[in-house]
Amino acid sequence: MTTRVPASEFESRLAAVRERLSDTTCDAAVWFGATSIEYLTGFHHIQTERPVCLAVTADRVELVVPRLEVERVAPNPRVDAVHDYFDYPGGDPMGVVASMLDGLGAASVAADSDGAPGVMGYEGPALSASVAVDTQSWVDRLRWAKSETEVDLIRESAKWANLGHRYLADFTEVGAHPVTVSQRASMAASRAMLDTLGSEYAVRTRGDGPVHAGYISGAETRLPHGHTPNERLSEGDVLITGATANVDGYYSELERTMFVGEPSDEQAHRFEQMLEAQTIAIEACGPGVPLADVDDAVHDYLAEQGIADLARHHVGHNIGLGAHEPPYVDTGWSEHRDDPADRTMEAGHVYTIEPGLYTDEAGYRHSGTVAVTEDGYEVLTHFPRDLASNTIRP
Amino acid sequence: MTTRVPASEFESRLAAVRERLSDTTCDAAVWFGATSIEYLTGFHHIQTERPVCLAVTADRVELVVPRLEVERVAPNPRVDAVHDYFDYPGGDPMGVVASMLDGLGAASVAADSDGAPGVMGYEGPALSASVAVDTQSWVDRLRWAKSETEVDLIRESAKWANLGHRYLADFTEVGAHPVTVSQRASMAASRAMLDTLGSEYAVRTRGDGPVHAGYISGAETRLPHGHTPNERLSEGDVLITGATANVDGYYSELERTMFVGEPSDEQAHRFEQMLEAQTIAIEACGPGVPLADVDDAVHDYLAEQGIADLARHHVGHNIGLGAHEPPYVDTGWSEHRDDPADRTMEAGHVYTIEPGLYTDEAGYRHSGTVAVTEDGYEVLTHFPRDLASNTIRP
Repeated sequence: MTTRVPASEFESRLAAVRERLSDTTCDAAVWFGATSIEYLTGFHHIQTERPVCLAVTADRVELVVPRLEVERVAPNPRVDAVHDYFDYPGGDPMGVVASMLDGLGAASVAADSDGAPGVMGYEGPALSASVAVDTQSWVDRLRWAKSETEVDLIRESAKWANLGHRYLADFTEVGAHPVTVSQRASMAASRAMLDTLGSEYAVRTRGDGPVHAGYISGAETRLPHGHTPNERLSEGDVLITGATANVDGYYSELERTMFVGEPSDEQAHRFEQMLEAQTIAIEACGPGVPLADVDDAVHDYLAEQGIADLARHHVGHNIGLGAHEPPYVDTGWSEHRDDPADRTMEAGHVYTIEPGLYTDEAGYRHSGTVAVTEDGYEVLTHFPRDLASNTIRP
Repeated sequence: MTTRVPASEFESRLAAVRERLSDTTCDAAVWFGATSIEYLTGFHHIQTERPVCLAVTADRVELVVPRLEVERVAPNPRVDAVHDYFDYPGGDPMGVVASMLDGLGAASVAADSDGAPGVMGYEGPALSASVAVDTQSWVDRLRWAKSETEVDLIRESAKWANLGHRYLADFTEVGAHPVTVSQRASMAASRAMLDTLGSEYAVRTRGDGPVHAGYISGAETRLPHGHTPNERLSEGDVLITGATANVDGYYSELERTMFVGEPSDEQAHRFEQMLEAQTIAIEACGPGVPLADVDDAVHDYLAEQGIADLARHHVGHNIGLGAHEPPYVDTGWSEHRDDPADRTMEAGHVYTIEPGLYTDEAGYRHSGTVAVTEDGYEVLTHFPRDLASNTIRP
C-alpha cells in the first residue's frame, strides 16, 4: 500500500532537473508554479496572490514564501534555506526572490515563467528585471511519465474512488436528491479511507474529505460539463457520475453512466455504443502507440455507426497531480508536437479514457484511468462497466 | 431575496467595458479569463486546457468555445454568435479566434492577455500573432466595487454559510472526526439551501453541494493554511472553521475560532486579543479609508500588546466571484497603487476582515465579510464572535 510520496522520489526528481540545468549555461533553475514546487520538494501550498518561488542549483534548494507558510516549510528536509516576506503586496516578494538568487550567485536562471503568475489579482515585476531569464518547462515534461510509485498512488486513489462510487450506487433511489446522495457517498467513503489508513493517511484537505463522489443527472447529462440540478431523481433518469480520492496529491478519475430504473431501448443502445467506443480506446492503449491513433480509432467507430455528430470532445488526457495533464488523447496531437518521441503513449503515462455520446435527451460517458505499461496497459479503475451493473433497480 | 445575477447587471457591465473600449483606438475588447467572461456574459465554464475567448465590440458579443460548451452557451441571450473548435489541440482554437476577430473587422484589440492562459498544460500561439494587441484589465478593476445586487448575492451566501456554521457547531463533540463533522455540516446546510430556494436556486455545482463548512483542528491551527488532521476531536482542541455558499457564483467568507470544551486561560486570552484585533479592523472600515490604515491599525494594536510576532499575514482581501480578490487590506497597499483613487476602501467593496494570531500551540482567527457602504460598513456574516458562543460544551 503506497499512500505517500517517499523521499527517494524527490531525490530522483531533483536529480533530473539538475541534470537538465547542467546542460544549460544558467546558474539556477527557478519555479513559481505550485504543482512544480510540490513535485520537486513535497512542499505543497495553496497558490494565491502571494508568490512562492523555488530555486535549485547544483547543490542548494531554497524557497521564498510568504510568512504564513514558514512553519509549514520548516520540517521539509530537502529545503536548505527559507526566505520570507511578510505578505503581498507590502512584503516585496520579488525583492526577496532577487536577494535569494543573489545569495546563490545566480545571475542567469532557467525559470518556468518570467515572474510569478497573475493568480487572484497578483501583479508584480518580471523576474528578468533582476536576472537573465530563459524559460523552461522541465517539470511539466517530466510529469508525463509517472514512476512506479506514482502509479501506485494513483492506483490507491482509484481504490477509494471505487468505494465512493459503490456508495453512490447504493444510496441512489427514486426521490433521492442528487446533491445529497453525492455528499453522503463522499462522506462515507472519506471516513472509510481515513479510518482504514489511519496514520498512513497523508493529510491533504481543509475542512473536507479526501474522497469526492457525485453525479449530474437528467437533462444536465446532455452537457459534458453539466451541473447537478435541484431536482430529485426520477425513474428513467440518466446519471453521469464521477469519483476520485486525493492520495498525497495524486488523483484518479472514475466516471460511469448509470440509469435510475430500467433504461429505454434507445438509452440501452446509446450506452452500448459508448461502452464499445471506450473498449476500443482502452484496447488501443500501449507503449509506442501514437496518441492521435487512439482518438482516431474512436472517431472511426462512431463514423461507422453513423453517430459522429454525437461526439463533443476527444478521448482523454493524462492525470496525476493535476486533474487534466498533457499529453491529451487527441486526433491533433501529432501535429502539436515537433519531437516524434512526444507523440506516443509511453510506459508510465496514465490516461483517462472517456469517449462520450451526447443526444438531445441525455449524455453517455464512462471514464476509466488507464496506466500504460512496458508491454500494454492496466486499467486502474475497477468499477464494472457493463449495463446491468450500472442499472439501479429498486 | 437575490439568488441570481439579473440581466440588467450584465447589460451595465457590457456598457462599462464598451465605454472603456470607445476611449481606445482598438476595434474590440477580448477576454480569455473564465471569471471575466462570466462577469460580462453570465456564461460560466470550467477553465481547462481548452481556450475560451470572448470578443466585445460596440455592437456585438461573440464567443469561441470548445465543441463541448456549445449547447451551454446557446441559450445565453447576450451572445450574438458562437464559434467552436472540436477540441484541443486538434481543433486550432487560436485559428478560430483569429477568424472570429476577422469577421468582426477587428484588426486591433484590447485583451486581458496576449493569448490563452497556460492552464492544465495549454500551449498555443500569442494573440499578437494574428492581431495588434494592447493589454487591459478592465474587468478586474470593475470587480473591485460590487453593485447593490452583487452585495445582495454575497449577503445571501453569508446566510447559508451561517447555517453551515451553526451545524458545524452543533455536530462537534469530543470523539467526533473533524472531516466527518465538516462533511455532515456541508451536506445538511446544502440540502436546506436547495430545499428552501427551490427553483430560485442557481444551479452551479457538479456532484457537490452549494454550502461548504468545515474546520482544521488541534495543532494544525498553528498554520494559517493548515489541514484537517486524521485525529478525532479531544477536549481542549482549538478549531478554526470556515463556511461559505455559492450563490450564482458569489461567495462570502465566515471563519471562527472555537474551543472543544472550556478554553485554558492562555487560550481565552489569545482569543480575546484576536477578537479585539478584528473589532479594531472592522470598525476602521469605511469609504475613503486608506486600505493600509486598516492593516496598520491591527499591527499597532498587536505591537502595543507585545505580540507583533504572533501575526503571520495581513488583515484581509476583497471577495466576490473570486475567493481572494484585490484590493488587499495590506500595509503596503498605498505604495502598490499609483492612482490615489485606488488606495482607499470605497462603497461596494466587500472585504474579509481576518487578523490572526499564531502561537506554538494553536492559531486564533475569525474572518468576517464586511461590505463598505456610502457612510460606513455592514458586517454580512452574523455568526456570533464572542468567546461563549464559540465554546462547545457537552
